[in-house]
Amino acid sequence: MGPHPAVAAIRLAVRRVLHDVLTEHTRSAEHTRHTPHPEFAEAGARAGRQRAALPERPDTPLVLVACSGGADSMALASALAFEAPKLDVRAGGITVDHGLQDGSDTRAAEVVDRLTDMRLDPVEAVAVQVGHEGGPEAAARDARYAALDAAAERHGAAAVLLGHTRDDQAETVLLGLARGSGIRSLSGMAAASGPAGRYRRPFLQLDRQTARKACLVQSLPVWEDPHNADPAYTRSRLRHEGLPALEKALGKGVVEALARTAQLSRDDADALDTWAAEADRAVRDDAGRLECAKLYALPPAVRRRVLRRAAMEAGSPAGSLFARHIEEVDRLITGWRGQRAINLPGRVEAMRQGGRLVIRQS
Amino acid sequence: MGPHPAVAAIRLAVRRVLHDVLTEHTRSAEHTRHTPHPEFAEAGARAGRQRAALPERPDTPLVLVACSGGADSMALASALAFEAPKLDVRAGGITVDHGLQDGSDTRAAEVVDRLTDMRLDPVEAVAVQVGHEGGPEAAARDARYAALDAAAERHGAAAVLLGHTRDDQAETVLLGLARGSGIRSLSGMAAASGPAGRYRRPFLQLDRQTARKACLVQSLPVWEDPHNADPAYTRSRLRHEGLPALEKALGKGVVEALARTAQLSRDDADALDTWAAEADRAVRDDAGRLECAKLYALPPAVRRRVLRRAAMEAGSPAGSLFARHIEEVDRLITGWRGQRAINLPGRVEAMRQGGRLVIRQS
Repeated sequence: MGPHPAVAAIRLAVRRVLHDVLTEHTRSAEHTRHTPHPEFAEAGARAGRQRAALPERPDTPLVLVACSGGADSMALASALAFEAPKLDVRAGGITVDHGLQDGSDTRAAEVVDRLTDMRLDPVEAVAVQVGHEGGPEAAARDARYAALDAAAERHGAAAVLLGHTRDDQAETVLLGLARGSGIRSLSGMAAASGPAGRYRRPFLQLDRQTARKACLVQSLPVWEDPHNADPAYTRSRLRHEGLPALEKALGKGVVEALARTAQLSRDDADALDTWAAEADRAVRDDAGRLECAKLYALPPAVRRRVLRRAAMEAGSPAGSLFARHIEEVDRLITGWRGQRAINLPGRVEAMRQGGRLVIRQS
Repeated sequence: MGPHPAVAAIRLAVRRVLHDVLTEHTRSAEHTRHTPHPEFAEAGARAGRQRAALPERPDTPLVLVACSGGADSMALASALAFEAPKLDVRAGGITVDHGLQDGSDTRAAEVVDRLTDMRLDPVEAVAVQVGHEGGPEAAARDARYAALDAAAERHGAAAVLLGHTRDDQAETVLLGLARGSGIRSLSGMAAASGPAGRYRRPFLQLDRQTARKACLVQSLPVWEDPHNADPAYTRSRLRHEGLPALEKALGKGVVEALARTAQLSRDDADALDTWAAEADRAVRDDAGRLECAKLYALPPAVRRRVLRRAAMEAGSPAGSLFARHIEEVDRLITGWRGQRAINLPGRVEAMRQGGRLVIRQS
C-alpha cells in the first residue's frame, strides 16, 4: 500500500523541484569545469532508491527548508526529508525566530528538534530583529528573507524551499488586486525567485488542506501561529473573512482561479516587459531622447511601460510610482495641450520639449 | 449656485461621451460625403448653451438611453436630457420589459412616462422573451441587448448609453477573476462596445452612490429591482456579501482598484493580442503551417495566444476553450515527448507532425 494521497502529493511536489534543482546544479557544476561524478550527472534523470546508499560528496547539493513549525512548512520538511536521500541531495532546515511573541525562542528550539528528528542536517534556528519599515508584515518578511539569504550563503545551499500554498497565492493575488496597479501585481509569488532562483515554492499548486492532511496522517505536530488568526493583519482578514465570502458568492473554485490568474498574469507581464524593453530602444532619436511621435504609435500598454522605465531610470522609486503618475505623463503624448512639467516621485520631472519627451531629475 | 456635485458629476460624464459621439458622427458624415452644416461640424469643440435654439436637422445624431428605472439609468437619463439639447443632439430612451416579474409591463409604462416627462423623444418600451441559454442572468442580458440593438437600428441611433457604474465594473472584474482564464476576463466592460462602438458607458468611472445621490437631489423616483437583492444571482451575492467582505479585509479602495485593474488589463490584453496576430504570421512556413521551433522561441504568453487563435480558426468555440486546453497543446511545443493528438472542443485536434503543429477539425 502506498502513502496517503496527501503525503504522495506533497512528496511529488518536492521531488519535481529537487529534480529541477539537481539539473541546474549539474549544469552549473559543468559550467565551472568541475568534473561531475558520472552517476551524479545523471541523477536528475535516473533518480532511484539505491542512491541513498551513495556516500556524501562535496559536490552533493544542499537544499534547505524554511520551517516555521506550521502545517505547510512542516509538511514540506517531511517531504524533503523523504525525497532528498533518494536523489542524493543533502537536506537541511532553518527556522527563523522573529522574536515577536513570548516564548518564540522556545518554539524555534522545538522546530529545530523536530527537523533534527527528521534527520535533516544542518538544522539551525536564526533569531532576527524585526524593524518597522513598511508595516509589521513587510518588516517581518524583510527580516526573514535576510536571515534565509544569509543562512543559504553560509551553508552554500543550492536552494531554499518555502511552504507557500495555492491558498497563500490566492491571498497574494487579492492583495495585489487591492493595489490596482496592473497585472504585475496580480502575478503573486513565483515558483522560483530570489538570487539565482534560490527560493523555490513546491506547494504553490497544492492547497493548504493537503499540507495539513499530510501532517495529520504522518502524526507531525504543527504549531498554529496566532498571527495567522489576528484580524489586525490584512492577510489574516483576507484568509478568514474576505476569501470565504468570495467563495460563498462565486463558488469553491475561486482559490484555484486566483492561482491560475497569477500564473497567466506573470507570463503576460513578462512578455509585455520584453516588448517594452525593445520598444524603449526603437522610440529614441540618435541622442537617446524619447520621440513623442514614435511613443504615440505604440500600444498604450507598451507605451506606459516605456514611460515607467524612463521615470525609474531617471531616479523615480518604483514603490512610489503609481499608475496615475504614468497616466499623467502619458497625456503629454496622447493629450498634448501645452501642459507644464509633471512632477514625479524622487524629484523627477517629465516634460515635452520640441517633439521629445524629457524625463529627468530636477 | 451650480448644481449639486453629484448632478454636476453625472452631467460631466455624459457631456464627455456626447462630445465623442458627436465627433465620430461628424467624421463619419464627412466620410460618407454628406455636407456637414458648418456649425455642426464644430459642435464637438464649441458646445454652448445657444445651440439648444437651433432647429433639429435630419443629420442631428440621436442618442438613446437604456433605462430600467433604477437609480443608475434614471440618473443617466436625466443627465442626457440636460446635456443633449446644449450639444444639438437628439435624446431618446428605451426601457426593456423582460417579463420576468409580475407587473413588469406596468413598470415599463411608468419608466416611459418618466422619460417622456424629461422630454426625451422617442421613448419606447420593448417587451422581450427571455430564454434559458447560459443561465438566467446571461439569458436576460442577451434578450436585452438584442432588443436594444433592434431599437438602435430602427431609430438610426448614433449611440445607446448604458448606466453601468464603477461598482458594476468592480463586480464584473471579480466575476472574470472567478473564471481564472486570464487578463482578458479581468478587463470588465469597455467604455464603448458593440457594433461600431454603439454602446457607451458614461458612468464607468463614477460610483453607484453618486448616481443615487443625483436621483435624490433631483427628486427622481427610482425603482429597486428585487433581482438586485436576490441571493440566487451570483452578481447579487457579490454585491451584497462578497465585495463588502473584501472591502472590510482590504480597505475602501477596492472598488476603485478593481476598476483600474479592468482598464489596465484591457490595454495589456489588447497589446498582447496585437503581438499574437503578428507572431501568427511569423511562425508559419511557406505552406502556412505552424513551425514548432519558431513557436518555442516566442514568450509563453504570446505563444499561448497564437495557439488559441489557431484552435479557434480550426473551429474550436471560444467559450469552451479553456486555459487548460491551451496548456496541453503548449506542451506539444515545450514538453515534447511523443504525445498523442490532443482533443479540443468542437472536434478539433492538435498534433505534432515533423516539426509542425497541426490543428484541425477531425
